[in-house]
Amino acid sequence: MQRIPAGFLPPVAMDVGSDTPMYQQLSDWFRRAISSGQLRPGQRVPSTRSLASELGISRIPVLGAYEQLQSEGFLETFTGAGTCVARAIPSDMTIERKRQIRVEPVASAGGSRRTSQRAKLLRQPEPTWLANMGAFRVGVPALDAFPSALWSRLVSRHARHLSPETMGYGDPMGHLPLREAIAEYLGAARAVRCDASQVLITTGSQQGLQICAHVLLDAGERVWMEDPGYPGAHQALRTAGAELVPVPVDAEGIDVAHGARVGADARAVYISPSHQFPLGMAMSASRRMQLLRWAASHDAWIIEDDYDSEYRFGSPPLSSLQGTDTNDRVIYLGTFSKVMFPALRLGYLVVPKDLVADFHAGRDAIDTFSSMLYQSVMTEFIRDGHFARHIRSMRTLYMEKRAAVHDAIRRYIGDRLEVIGTEAGMQLAGYLPPGVDDVAVSRKAATVGVSVRPLTPCYLASPKRAGLILGYGGVSPEQIDEGVRKLSQCL
Amino acid sequence: MQRIPAGFLPPVAMDVGSDTPMYQQLSDWFRRAISSGQLRPGQRVPSTRSLASELGISRIPVLGAYEQLQSEGFLETFTGAGTCVARAIPSDMTIERKRQIRVEPVASAGGSRRTSQRAKLLRQPEPTWLANMGAFRVGVPALDAFPSALWSRLVSRHARHLSPETMGYGDPMGHLPLREAIAEYLGAARAVRCDASQVLITTGSQQGLQICAHVLLDAGERVWMEDPGYPGAHQALRTAGAELVPVPVDAEGIDVAHGARVGADARAVYISPSHQFPLGMAMSASRRMQLLRWAASHDAWIIEDDYDSEYRFGSPPLSSLQGTDTNDRVIYLGTFSKVMFPALRLGYLVVPKDLVADFHAGRDAIDTFSSMLYQSVMTEFIRDGHFARHIRSMRTLYMEKRAAVHDAIRRYIGDRLEVIGTEAGMQLAGYLPPGVDDVAVSRKAATVGVSVRPLTPCYLASPKRAGLILGYGGVSPEQIDEGVRKLSQCL
Repeated sequence: MQRIPAGFLPPVAMDVGSDTPMYQQLSDWFRRAISSGQLRPGQRVPSTRSLASELGISRIPVLGAYEQLQSEGFLETFTGAGTCVARAIPSDMTIERKRQIRVEPVASAGGSRRTSQRAKLLRQPEPTWLANMGAFRVGVPALDAFPSALWSRLVSRHARHLSPETMGYGDPMGHLPLREAIAEYLGAARAVRCDASQVLITTGSQQGLQICAHVLLDAGERVWMEDPGYPGAHQALRTAGAELVPVPVDAEGIDVAHGARVGADARAVYISPSHQFPLGMAMSASRRMQLLRWAASHDAWIIEDDYDSEYRFGSPPLSSLQGTDTNDRVIYLGTFSKVMFPALRLGYLVVPKDLVADFHAGRDAIDTFSSMLYQSVMTEFIRDGHFARHIRSMRTLYMEKRAAVHDAIRRYIGDRLEVIGTEAGMQLAGYLPPGVDDVAVSRKAATVGVSVRPLTPCYLASPKRAGLILGYGGVSPEQIDEGVRKLSQCL
Repeated sequence: MQRIPAGFLPPVAMDVGSDTPMYQQLSDWFRRAISSGQLRPGQRVPSTRSLASELGISRIPVLGAYEQLQSEGFLETFTGAGTCVARAIPSDMTIERKRQIRVEPVASAGGSRRTSQRAKLLRQPEPTWLANMGAFRVGVPALDAFPSALWSRLVSRHARHLSPETMGYGDPMGHLPLREAIAEYLGAARAVRCDASQVLITTGSQQGLQICAHVLLDAGERVWMEDPGYPGAHQALRTAGAELVPVPVDAEGIDVAHGARVGADARAVYISPSHQFPLGMAMSASRRMQLLRWAASHDAWIIEDDYDSEYRFGSPPLSSLQGTDTNDRVIYLGTFSKVMFPALRLGYLVVPKDLVADFHAGRDAIDTFSSMLYQSVMTEFIRDGHFARHIRSMRTLYMEKRAAVHDAIRRYIGDRLEVIGTEAGMQLAGYLPPGVDDVAVSRKAATVGVSVRPLTPCYLASPKRAGLILGYGGVSPEQIDEGVRKLSQCL
């Protein structure tokens, strides 16, 4: 056994003022000294008495640390021979030599450590300069108009009835009464044809997309993606390793004939037919039929994202594509983030009956199940009619807000922003004149406190058309007027 | 334009007693008749008057349905020529012809419709005969001993303070005060070295694993997996397309030398070093050092699953591998499902600093962020000392329960079940004698109301050793005695 004087022990840094107990600071230090090779297997360590005196501390924490390190196998004690670093620990010398051979090529790869290719794709950021800004943040509803007091009362009441049943593991498909309420709501409001067995509760549309991507697609398989389209869907599909096939959209929605030419081998299609993200048009009946038939004849799936279809102004609501499909090719995706509030973290999928088992397994593998409390509160909120009432009052509110934005654009900006899309939803898109850089406009607007999303980052392919997306859900009339006025100065 | 008498209209099925309004039943029927080709583009439909009289209903719902179908583009009207199916809709005839050519090869693939290869892997079921059974369900804590009244009070209080800030979109990394509280707790209790910037809030360990898999691995890349190991980890890693490399475990934990031989090219290692799932041993100090060095020299990541390390009986708690690692190779995975309750849906990852941006993007792509209410309640629960107090009282409780299970096994089963693993956690594993079929035992036990998980489904490779896993967290002393007695009759 190698004998070295206690003085050769590397310096032990102890922080007497720390919340971490002394014995733990000491055992941490030993573990890391052994791990890093500063202390070698078989090397003798000072006696508890001499270490305590050297550090100027009581012997009790040193005894505690040694005991712990022995029970963990870092130190071993021999009667009469004192304590040493366990000899079973592999010698660091051999490792150091290996490392010189092996680590080099890795370290040369740009200096940073290797994560997955998909992690690199996912890093493509949302416009970070818009983080958490007010007018015109996209996707945020009128939270000040939400019946918070009522909701809080329901939450309190349900929180009082915690039971082992509601605290334990739940059904991956979700709380059955909520699934029943959703099936009924979707049947009445969106002409979705389903029963509760087909409804899967998610934490929102992002997770819904994620589950779709994993259940329907293997790595490298192709998906049609509306172009421009929803960046969240790009992310979800890329995470699953899918290859995105950009398919242009025009005034009738996705160009199915184009898709059929460039993506005949695609396994799935992602669309937002009621209110296209970001341009805002509704998909025409003729295109809907084309797409349903293409999917049926090519064994492909359609992911229908119906993210804010509850709100249509002036014209009757469009029925879902799912309800028109006679071949059970559509997976319907919905969320409560827009009609309720984002932090609720509840959404849903409606899946064809023969896919229920696969989606059940996919949900279980991805995230087990959804938190119970909000599921039961949401069920009551729907059952008691609060949900329908809230949607109705928000529809009027958003119609007014949209009109106010439109009006302010006409007054302050005029034809420098060509408003497009139908009268629906919580956001409005417009094209900028040719040659204008929408990212630069968005950055400039952010400096004066206005949040507008540029259109070009929503494109996968060229030509990209510059434009802006303005969310008006969470914006007050005064903010609308002031925001558009400030925006006009950035153009 | 094709003119056909109204009598040729396929039969319209109306349900007068239904909750769905008549106009909507009618428009649904038309859409589907057009979609399925029963009604052809250009085909004339009856006038509203004649259809109403034919169906014996008022003309109002027929007018409503036609108006809706026209606004959606399914029907078109010509002055003087009546109403017909929109001619812009692609003719079904051409599609039908195409379908005959194209659909055949697809339909021949076994009759069922195509989902992903990974969906097939994920379908490998948990032992479904154990669903929601009492003694000895694995992974369920003592929910009856949870301070529910206190928790409900906290939830009610926090639910009263809904604000647009807490209702809107939150930070993908999680609520900062909770991340701070977790960093402090892990530093003190598990010797994890981190600050709040490295803590990512998840919905539980399954989502944590999912994020790790997607950020660290591309499809087809290899991961060491303890064998036998945690089936939830198999699922998560397979979802991401990873290839699992089974590495045997012995009394010291994962056999690193074996792993280095068969999986030298692996990108990551999944381990549960504090309390191996399912066998229950702790990883030795020597193996820990071997693994840390192997990972550092091979540019591989270590996913440390510390799922129930809070509970150790008799010996001091083992420190985490993360705290011993001097190369920042460990991603530490924890959950509140075992120490609090599963339906809380809160867990966490601790990631190396240089990986924070990638994990942030991965969390955002997979599921945006976690629900706010429980995050803020949990923060207060930790800050006010309830969490530490609850863990302490559960430790005593589980120690007693474990002793009771052990004792009952000795009395009723004897050497027909060889108990293994250390004195820790909420479950206990034992080997059955050679030749006994553990799945058959588990199925038989389920018929008498006893839930024991068979060991062999936790293996990826042979030889598999038959055994049983008994969870005792949520089981009362009476259930323990009766359950083990019943189990002995199944052996």
